[in-house]
Amino acid sequence: MSSDPTDAPTPAPPSATARNGPAVSREEFDALFAAVRTWGRWAPADRGAWNRVSADHVRRATALVRSGTVVALARPWDTAPGPDNSKPALHYLSDLGDVEPPEPSTHKDFIGTDYHGKGVSHLDALSHIAYRGQLYDGGTARELVGAGGARFGDVSALGPLVTKGVLLDLPAVLGTSWLEPGQAVRAADVAAAEEALGVEIGEGDAVLLRVGRFRRRRELGAWDLDASSAGLHVEAVPLLAERGIALLGGDGDSDVRPSPVEGLHSPVHALAVAAMGVPLLDNLDLETLSATAAGTGRYEFLLVVAPLDIPGGTGSPVNPVAVF
Amino acid sequence: MSSDPTDAPTPAPPSATARNGPAVSREEFDALFAAVRTWGRWAPADRGAWNRVSADHVRRATALVRSGTVVALARPWDTAPGPDNSKPALHYLSDLGDVEPPEPSTHKDFIGTDYHGKGVSHLDALSHIAYRGQLYDGGTARELVGAGGARFGDVSALGPLVTKGVLLDLPAVLGTSWLEPGQAVRAADVAAAEEALGVEIGEGDAVLLRVGRFRRRRELGAWDLDASSAGLHVEAVPLLAERGIALLGGDGDSDVRPSPVEGLHSPVHALAVAAMGVPLLDNLDLETLSATAAGTGRYEFLLVVAPLDIPGGTGSPVNPVAVF
Amino acid sequence: MSSDPTDAPTPAPPSATARNGPAVSREEFDALFAAVRTWGRWAPADRGAWNRVSADHVRRATALVRSGTVVALARPWDTAPGPDNSKPALHYLSDLGDVEPPEPSTHKDFIGTDYHGKGVSHLDALSHIAYRGQLYDGGTARELVGAGGARFGDVSALGPLVTKGVLLDLPAVLGTSWLEPGQAVRAADVAAAEEALGVEIGEGDAVLLRVGRFRRRRELGAWDLDASSAGLHVEAVPLLAERGIALLGGDGDSDVRPSPVEGLHSPVHALAVAAMGVPLLDNLDLETLSATAAGTGRYEFLLVVAPLDIPGGTGSPVNPVAVF
Amino acid sequence: MSSDPTDAPTPAPPSATARNGPAVSREEFDALFAAVRTWGRWAPADRGAWNRVSADHVRRATALVRSGTVVALARPWDTAPGPDNSKPALHYLSDLGDVEPPEPSTHKDFIGTDYHGKGVSHLDALSHIAYRGQLYDGGTARELVGAGGARFGDVSALGPLVTKGVLLDLPAVLGTSWLEPGQAVRAADVAAAEEALGVEIGEGDAVLLRVGRFRRRRELGAWDLDASSAGLHVEAVPLLAERGIALLGGDGDSDVRPSPVEGLHSPVHALAVAAMGVPLLDNLDLETLSATAAGTGRYEFLLVVAPLDIPGGTGSPVNPVAVF
Repeated sequence: MSSDPTDAPTPAPPSATARNGPAVSREEFDALFAAVRTWGRWAPADRGAWNRVSADHVRRATALVRSGTVVALARPWDTAPGPDNSKPALHYLSDLGDVEPPEPSTHKDFIGTDYHGKGVSHLDALSHIAYRGQLYDGGTARELVGAGGARFGDVSALGPLVTKGVLLDLPAVLGTSWLEPGQAVRAADVAAAEEALGVEIGEGDAVLLRVGRFRRRRELGAWDLDASSAGLHVEAVPLLAERGIALLGGDGDSDVRPSPVEGLHSPVHALAVAAMGVPLLDNLDLETLSATAAGTGRYEFLLVVAPLDIPGGTGSPVNPVAVF
Repeated sequence: MSSDPTDAPTPAPPSATARNGPAVSREEFDALFAAVRTWGRWAPADRGAWNRVSADHVRRATALVRSGTVVALARPWDTAPGPDNSKPALHYLSDLGDVEPPEPSTHKDFIGTDYHGKGVSHLDALSHIAYRGQLYDGGTARELVGAGGARFGDVSALGPLVTKGVLLDLPAVLGTSWLEPGQAVRAADVAAAEEALGVEIGEGDAVLLRVGRFRRRRELGAWDLDASSAGLHVEAVPLLAERGIALLGGDGDSDVRPSPVEGLHSPVHALAVAAMGVPLLDNLDLETLSATAAGTGRYEFLLVVAPLDIPGGTGSPVNPVAVF
Repeated sequence: MSSDPTDAPTPAPPSATARNGPAVSREEFDALFAAVRTWGRWAPADRGAWNRVSADHVRRATALVRSGTVVALARPWDTAPGPDNSKPALHYLSDLGDVEPPEPSTHKDFIGTDYHGKGVSHLDALSHIAYRGQLYDGGTARELVGAGGARFGDVSALGPLVTKGVLLDLPAVLGTSWLEPGQAVRAADVAAAEEALGVEIGEGDAVLLRVGRFRRRRELGAWDLDASSAGLHVEAVPLLAERGIALLGGDGDSDVRPSPVEGLHSPVHALAVAAMGVPLLDNLDLETLSATAAGTGRYEFLLVVAPLDIPGGTGSPVNPVAVF
Repeated sequence: MSSDPTDAPTPAPPSATARNGPAVSREEFDALFAAVRTWGRWAPADRGAWNRVSADHVRRATALVRSGTVVALARPWDTAPGPDNSKPALHYLSDLGDVEPPEPSTHKDFIGTDYHGKGVSHLDALSHIAYRGQLYDGGTARELVGAGGARFGDVSALGPLVTKGVLLDLPAVLGTSWLEPGQAVRAADVAAAEEALGVEIGEGDAVLLRVGRFRRRRELGAWDLDASSAGLHVEAVPLLAERGIALLGGDGDSDVRPSPVEGLHSPVHALAVAAMGVPLLDNLDLETLSATAAGTGRYEFLLVVAPLDIPGGTGSPVNPVAVF
């Protein structure tokens, strides 16, 4: 979600307006927001759509495991600034065997990160986003989130998630290396991907959308995703809401940009987090997952997401794990 | 530059010397080190004993799931200093909806931690420990670990672990609330716990030792674990080595203290990490796991450990997940 | 100003209530606040009482220099937690000659600090304190200070200060090693100190109050200053206001504690910063300054305070310099 | 772990090689190093050339004050990444009046910085640089600087400096807005500047070299100074050594780049810090100083440098103060 003032937004290519899907007025967006809203449905509300994941879902998800192949989805901790990393992560060695006395000698390090943005694989808790001043379930953001942290919707309230993961591998479906920045993924694309990949998104599932960001980054270099990124058009969200997903994530941050919604930089964030109570996973590296899915022909798997337990935290860096 | 809890050691109670098991000379320790050493056994060596966890292990571990109950093992991020938290974790809100322009408004935070020590639930990678100047597999620590990070045995080399977890719940076995600080857990105790709890530690398993630290902490307050903590006596390590464990962890840091080994503050760390290539999980909160295991009568479960992917990192804060 | 929840407040000795001076009701305090208030007096208001320091003051302050003796007033960066250091400073080496390629080889470090509190020598800018929701000059704190920093009264607005410093060395006046924690310094004490030390506090001066904290700390160990500290009673503040001081500081944080004012933890902070626009210097080590002043018999000197230029910052760690 | 601007060197313009002065072989450089070396001259050696600044220098420096004009030399804390800020500084509000209970309410912040580089105004202590493995005065860098900090030449050993400052305002001398990146300043330029500006560099003086970096930055934007920056050619250093300067600084980092010395990225750093024991001030904003000097016609002034007292620190962010 970070768009730093320093980011020099790459001018969107001329065709971007078309590619990012139909323009949506603020009024239309608000109707969409109301339509997918699940406020008042769960207790505790902090867990939002993760309340959908029953013990039965957990059992069925673990039963998906066939080959025992384990795939990690985090990209490496990135300490180098760049167009998609305006807040480089910190990593300092604090003991090189010369601070605490041996034996044994110990090596230690300090890590630090302002992880929201485009650089760190992370989970957005429900306190991360407010729309029109309200957090998920209707609380007033200004009263519920302060310098001491979030008093509603913190990442501690979420805990870990164990569920079925579904990979919507758009480049695989389309036979391309990646989706170009600015390319919208629409409801029809989601439905087509389900069919092509032989999966069906169901209640409590985690949907991971691959647009091929890191393949493109490796081949062409980094760019400013706040200016131009492939992702979901809001028009695709009702389908996901109907299916009752628990988690949405991807190799971008789920939103197509430029945003097709008037005056809203991150409309899918607003819908997923604030209306539906669906946490988001941003900046996953899905290249190995894609290859593994292609190799096995299976685009569903056991997914485990284990955020750090940070009371008051608006999210957490994570390394989600898929097991085939 | 931080001062470690060792700076102001609480005097061990008079009986500690007895309770922490038989004294071990440095010579005896070195013989033990040689006996359990697995250097040269695996490629890549960086993953050490995690190489034992085959796809078959993963499948069998996921097949352990019955009830679908999910238990998180991390203790909350602790920003308050104390006798067992000399390097308080950092947590600052970096956006309260007033930095990045809405809509939607976003809340963001910065986290930081020098996680090795007694305060943070974390994983030790193989680069964390050197004995007599050597890392696991024999490399020279001074050459392999620098200000730029570890070039051998970093946490990125480990990746995630999915395997069978076994809870050795010592207080449950002994019918006590906790083991007193300074109490050694010996080979016979491990064997007795297996029998009492109906588990058998096998190759590739993750062994979690509960001594009841956090129950004691809640009832009696925090204390300096470097001076006095319940944990394994080195005499118990060969049994774990024979069984071929992949991971060792617990609610302490595995070592009994005061250390029974002459001149060695953390002898179990040296044996597990540097000799056997077994990463360690420190400072887990195992109270809920204990209650869940007692409730189901099952002390084995699916365990998923997903460290952050920090190139050069000597470990990672983690929130391991147990599934019953 | 930090009173961390974790601080276990040292019970104040029985005589503390008496020693910390007469009790002051909230009503009396508010009258005092109104009496010393300088709101609306200066433009820019952000610099508050530093506007009193004209070029002429600077010239006269530099003309005080006789011997050329230079004394630094900061205590060392303190990375060890303790009763008076609940937020230990961070210091990590980031390059030990092995990260950036030679030649030459370079050594680098990272520092970090949440400097307000009792551990770091620092300057409080005018945005640090609000009373009844208002910053100095009457602005609404909640509107003017956010996650992006202070939009009024930040430390950048202050810039450096060059003025006459006056050391009120209370233990020297009283012939003691230090003032006991909880001991109030009152108007009569300030006047008596001026006379005894041969100084007169004038407009634009910086007043440094020594209570001997660090001598006591070295001899007796650290204690919780939020529970008990020697410092000014609010009754002494009107005298300082009359004199038109520009800056107030000391080896404590200026406030006597327990606070004599009903419901106010830091009443001198409220008066100095929010009413008078007088920045504060907290936690200075004044032991060498005291010895130098005693040796030369001069308790006034050139003082230079050079805060870091942190836009939006509520203060800065500093190392003030006295020149005799 | 952070990547330095050197990672992506902007190709130097074709004329750079010529403009950066005559090429210097490593052998010639080593002869220069030997010629200006002051090892063994002072005790304590840690203070290096600051030992030249006697109480008499301090008195004479303060006697330079005429107008009482105070000028700060630090650039603002820069949290935005850029070509000359690869390690953005950290600034987070830690209390917005909602963490610690009122009254008064308090606002607090955390700052952090890995200050060496091009983004932060800072002082290099003598431990910052080693040449051929040796620190100033001949100690072995690898033994004297570790994860616990520098045991020789730390910034605490320096303490504050009060001395005469001399501004070598090259653009003012040359009648240009700035020196182009890559432009070398040579001995003859220094001598000509002294004459043109009516100053004479003497023993114990602080020399500040202005090349107009921040004027150029404001007008043309930031660039990578590691690839191309105006600064001193090593050939100018013997003149400064003869004069017995105590401190060298500027709006760049003193070195011209591309470096004219074979295989040495920062030869002036090596000569000043490691051979001569002269600390450096990097990245000062000298625009206001230049205007003030021009306005008064005086290019010498009282200079006060007050680094933070960081034991083991290799330098410190600073806000040097000039008084006219």
